[in-house]
Amino acid sequence: MTKQATRRRGDDLVRSIHEAVLAELAEVGLGRLTMEGIARRARTAKTSLYRRWASPHDVLLDAIHDEHPQEVPSPSADDLRGDLIRALRQLVEWTRSPTAAAAAAILGERKRYPELAAALYERVFDARGGRFTLTVLRYYAARGHLDPALITPVVADIGEALVLKHSLDADAPPSDEQLAAIVDQAILPAVGRGPQRAAR
Amino acid sequence: MTKQATRRRGDDLVRSIHEAVLAELAEVGLGRLTMEGIARRARTAKTSLYRRWASPHDVLLDAIHDEHPQEVPSPSADDLRGDLIRALRQLVEWTRSPTAAAAAAILGERKRYPELAAALYERVFDARGGRFTLTVLRYYAARGHLDPALITPVVADIGEALVLKHSLDADAPPSDEQLAAIVDQAILPAVGRGPQRAAR
Repeated sequence: MTKQATRRRGDDLVRSIHEAVLAELAEVGLGRLTMEGIARRARTAKTSLYRRWASPHDVLLDAIHDEHPQEVPSPSADDLRGDLIRALRQLVEWTRSPTAAAAAAILGERKRYPELAAALYERVFDARGGRFTLTVLRYYAARGHLDPALITPVVADIGEALVLKHSLDADAPPSDEQLAAIVDQAILPAVGRGPQRAAR
Repeated sequence: MTKQATRRRGDDLVRSIHEAVLAELAEVGLGRLTMEGIARRARTAKTSLYRRWASPHDVLLDAIHDEHPQEVPSPSADDLRGDLIRALRQLVEWTRSPTAAAAAAILGERKRYPELAAALYERVFDARGGRFTLTVLRYYAARGHLDPALITPVVADIGEALVLKHSLDADAPPSDEQLAAIVDQAILPAVGRGPQRAAR
């Protein structure tokens, strides 16, 4: 056994396995993901995988879950606009990550793996705060700065929807300036702060 | 020559060719679309294709263009909400059409055919009114019912973005009720009409 393999314990081992499942997915695809392949790539024993996870798809969901960004609103709750822009920036950064590619692979094959796609929403997205910007919006509503009745599923989706749409149309994620425009012109008006006039 | 082939002229022939290019695309994909294949499927001569179009991709763009829905706002301009919902309903109907599948195929291969993807936006989407809801928003602004400065690219994109996002998350297009929620909770507030409280 190599020194590396004997030394890895707990978090380190889990991290190696998470990296392995994402790399394995990128190479072989969802349908050919196996415990053997993940174990080989992580240089660990298949038994150590089965101790924590029931299936390769479980390993994958766990990897996506652990890498999912968490929004941290300003403790003083006095910068809604800045906190929303930061939340969307986290989304843009996430879209460039291997876990976002894995999430896209799952959604691209949802007809074949409907339970996996459902688990992606329930066990990852919902478990990690729902949509991007929703944690921030709820934080300000809980402190009396926003009407909670305005934070509907549609409103919670505005930021993600416009970032996704921009990325599709421009074949590139929005710039910081464009994220600010999304916040000023679409999200803030929907929660009763606006509409803000466009800068130009 | 068959009776059908001799009789088709003008619009009828163009319609047959448009149907043929969409069917051919669905079967062989963008990379193997040829004038020969389109002509054979439309039961016409290749020369009659070259009389109007320079390439198979030109035929395809023309087909998508001609089938693209046009928004028709209420002449009285007194039903902004209803006109917006109708515009989004046209979008939902369009997403179920063969031309939407063709547009998705072009965007899916934009790395290989960047000029074709650019032409899809310029010669089809922009030429046919830009985003869904934009024709309606401009119509009301032109009549003094909305501040034209609020109709920014971000705001014009809200409807399409939320319909796309809903379709991705739910793997199904939004219902009429959900389209109304998009209009009430996201589009109207962004143009200075709202926010409307959610019904529940």
